[in-house]
Amino acid sequence: MITENIEKSLTEHLFKNTPQHDIRDVYFYACLPAGKFFRPSLVWSICQDLNQELFEKSLTNANSNHSKLSSSIELHHTYTLLHDDLPCMDDDQMRRGRPCTHIKFGEWKALLAGDGLLNISYQLLAKIKHPRLNEVIGFFSWANGPKGLIHGQTLDLSHEMTVSFKNTLRTHELKTARLIQSAVVLSAALALPQKNYETEKTLWKYSRLLGINFQLIDDLSELAESPLSQHEKDVNPWLKFPQETYQYTLNSLREFENLSKKLQLKNTDIIIGDYYKKMLSIITPNRAIINQNLKNELDLDPVVLILNSFGKR
Amino acid sequence: MITENIEKSLTEHLFKNTPQHDIRDVYFYACLPAGKFFRPSLVWSICQDLNQELFEKSLTNANSNHSKLSSSIELHHTYTLLHDDLPCMDDDQMRRGRPCTHIKFGEWKALLAGDGLLNISYQLLAKIKHPRLNEVIGFFSWANGPKGLIHGQTLDLSHEMTVSFKNTLRTHELKTARLIQSAVVLSAALALPQKNYETEKTLWKYSRLLGINFQLIDDLSELAESPLSQHEKDVNPWLKFPQETYQYTLNSLREFENLSKKLQLKNTDIIIGDYYKKMLSIITPNRAIINQNLKNELDLDPVVLILNSFGKR
Repeated sequence: MITENIEKSLTEHLFKNTPQHDIRDVYFYACLPAGKFFRPSLVWSICQDLNQELFEKSLTNANSNHSKLSSSIELHHTYTLLHDDLPCMDDDQMRRGRPCTHIKFGEWKALLAGDGLLNISYQLLAKIKHPRLNEVIGFFSWANGPKGLIHGQTLDLSHEMTVSFKNTLRTHELKTARLIQSAVVLSAALALPQKNYETEKTLWKYSRLLGINFQLIDDLSELAESPLSQHEKDVNPWLKFPQETYQYTLNSLREFENLSKKLQLKNTDIIIGDYYKKMLSIITPNRAIINQNLKNELDLDPVVLILNSFGKR
Repeated sequence: MITENIEKSLTEHLFKNTPQHDIRDVYFYACLPAGKFFRPSLVWSICQDLNQELFEKSLTNANSNHSKLSSSIELHHTYTLLHDDLPCMDDDQMRRGRPCTHIKFGEWKALLAGDGLLNISYQLLAKIKHPRLNEVIGFFSWANGPKGLIHGQTLDLSHEMTVSFKNTLRTHELKTARLIQSAVVLSAALALPQKNYETEKTLWKYSRLLGINFQLIDDLSELAESPLSQHEKDVNPWLKFPQETYQYTLNSLREFENLSKKLQLKNTDIIIGDYYKKMLSIITPNRAIINQNLKNELDLDPVVLILNSFGKR
């Protein structure tokens, strides 16, 4: 239901901000059908959890602040995928089960469409009507700019990520968590009737843990195949730093669970629970393969238990 | 003098918004030493022409609205150059007399630094303190986004630009004029004590002509060598559409001169005069070669006369 609204307003925003020209097909191919809409779903669930009335008024209105934020975050996410997939970056061929945009349309179109989406993400933010607009755009550009998401990409491509567990964490924080934090914290900033330093600070920590765990659980699910690719062996933190990754994941999932109980974000819990369920549907039937890849050195039961408990809340 | 201040605040903004990491060298290499600072110079000259008091307070203060706009426009310009030079785009090796950023540091670093600069350009705009901030960022992203500058790049790379003179004009308007228009119109929006629809509309036309002529005169100066490269023969509008290009240039330079007299922008006239002088220093000594490339079919005297008259005003 919410996913349909996300897609509807995204389509409207994308259509409105791209030219009437063949190149529009490139923008649409890159963005739709989308992935799981995890980030925009968080925008809406946080809005609903903090301000039900605003949520009801906003969801079906592509002109609402939260619709603009929702599309902005998703389009920004898509630009990073477009550029990450290019030959000079990760050199990927397939994305979401079909050829990458640069494979389908050529490199320069994928590069320019990425630049275009990046611009649209700010264009949509600029159309938000809110007294804290400076702060919203300032936060977004800091979180996802050269000191944020883009620095995470740098640490990844320079292979600094895999030098230590600390570097892996920092990379996950910047490359994955920052955009997720933007979804959560900015949605709250636009939904709260007035600035609430304590709540926003707690949401900042909460979404940081969410983003890092999102990536670590994703890394774990990547071990559900045999044999592993050389790339996976080179970068997966569960293989490179098994004990540290295990302990950190367990502790931070617990910490996240505590924060989550404190915050009482009912709808956001459902979104996260759904994601964990999806991850478990890969992990659970492949436990034997994963254990074998981990040389049977880690007891995954407590991790699976926490992920399971989220789905049931 | 103004150029020094532009460089000083640009350096400060760039340092502040890039991480303490080797990658910072890539950002600095891409941005400094800069080109001729034509666009940021326009930001300042318009500010001075419209609001001398504000100009004096702002020029030496990197935290002023116009300093942020000035750096934002220059960094945005630099991101387009970084991406344009990449192998999948124009595949250039040299820029400003030294190896392109991707030649010096590798492709992925140039690509990411371009993305980073694009983000910083919005980050700086978001820090502007002005009641018309939404409008400023909205205009900027429209002018330089998928329907603006980026669409100009699309028309260029898809070779649609060279299909007709109309397409060439449209490409120059989008790819070159839009960012120059952003410099002029947004500087005015931030300098005028209150919104002035008439002045801003006239400045919009004025800067559109300025931007298109900037590119057409640049195209003319490219004919100052023999033999011409195949690429030049394929794209230069003075060779592809000599009569139309000549007539349009002459007429629009005259129109621009009239608007310029009406607007009485003393300091901006100096910036533009300096640019035309620089172009004439290439064109004048090479008139014979240029005429030969044009098969002696065009009388360039009237064009040179107008360019000359600007330098003397």
